Amino acid sequence: MNFCSHCGQPVRFAIPEGDDRPRFLCEACGTIHYQNPRIVAGTLPVSGSRILLCRRAISPRKGYWTLPAGFMENAETTLEAAARETREEAGAEVRLHGLYTLINLPHIDQVYMIFLADLEGGFEAGPESLEVALFEEHEIPWDELAFPTIERTLRHFFADRPGGDYPLHVSDITPEDRERYFGSA
Amino acid sequence: MNFCSHCGQPVRFAIPEGDDRPRFLCEACGTIHYQNPRIVAGTLPVSGSRILLCRRAISPRKGYWTLPAGFMENAETTLEAAARETREEAGAEVRLHGLYTLINLPHIDQVYMIFLADLEGGFEAGPESLEVALFEEHEIPWDELAFPTIERTLRHFFADRPGGDYPLHVSDITPEDRERYFGSA
Repeated sequence: MNFCSHCGQPVRFAIPEGDDRPRFLCEACGTIHYQNPRIVAGTLPVSGSRILLCRRAISPRKGYWTLPAGFMENAETTLEAAARETREEAGAEVRLHGLYTLINLPHIDQVYMIFLADLEGGFEAGPESLEVALFEEHEIPWDELAFPTIERTLRHFFADRPGGDYPLHVSDITPEDRERYFGSA
Repeated sequence: MNFCSHCGQPVRFAIPEGDDRPRFLCEACGTIHYQNPRIVAGTLPVSGSRILLCRRAISPRKGYWTLPAGFMENAETTLEAAARETREEAGAEVRLHGLYTLINLPHIDQVYMIFLADLEGGFEAGPESLEVALFEEHEIPWDELAFPTIERTLRHFFADRPGGDYPLHVSDITPEDRERYFGSA
């Protein structure tokens, strides 16, 4: 951020009076520009014994497999965002169950929220996917997954499935977890 | 948003090519300015049979009672944000348990995440609180609560407490729910 989005004058990065961390400040109009983490909402779509994955057609991690997920938009709920991303990336309708993984990525200012879901009907690759397919557990391409959040969600799922209970799992991804996927930054 | 925060030129509000909703676009430098919902993280601090509330010293809803909660910051986790807000508003340390309510407010682009917590040690009003106090269920000032998210979280808690089980509750706040607190917009 270089300029004030309200008045167009240059901003500076400093701690506002009464605050305890630096913000982008506009001294011309007095606006303080707060920046906050973004939610990535998605689903783990289940069809019988198989789960649905999408192969990414876009950067980052083009060509790697992911669960349908993306940035939540203004004016929607987390469940609407998860269902919309599933529709856009996998051409699939789902019946949403509970929130299944809540994963913090503080080093990139993201919070993942993946909902367990039942696939309803068919699917097809949307513009952001090269292909969409159903996988049995032994078919999961563990070495070709796009993000550590996806691997973690799938590992929870296959660990929970024998017991038939899918509680919410809350955890964090560290820069080291992420390095395995992206190399050192 | 009137000006591009990257290059300082005026922006326009239009649907980018390949997108399906309007964004603030800078035609000078090509930046698309995405806007996304914000997370409000907080706690429901429990001390024996009582729960902790803070009376707000700031707008909106100054003078009304709330659970300690506030906007999640970049570079922290949802749990860190909830604990920090509890420290800042109530001068209290807590031991966090699970995520207890996840409440979508799509009309104001917010997602509330309240964690159940045990109060550890004392408390005192921070700069954003007029006072902080512990309440038995029959003492809760239901008509003087600050936000519908707080009322809903407390109602879940007192409904769940007899059974001793506190599952995650996911729900939405509508503009009508909010009108009772803020009057018609």
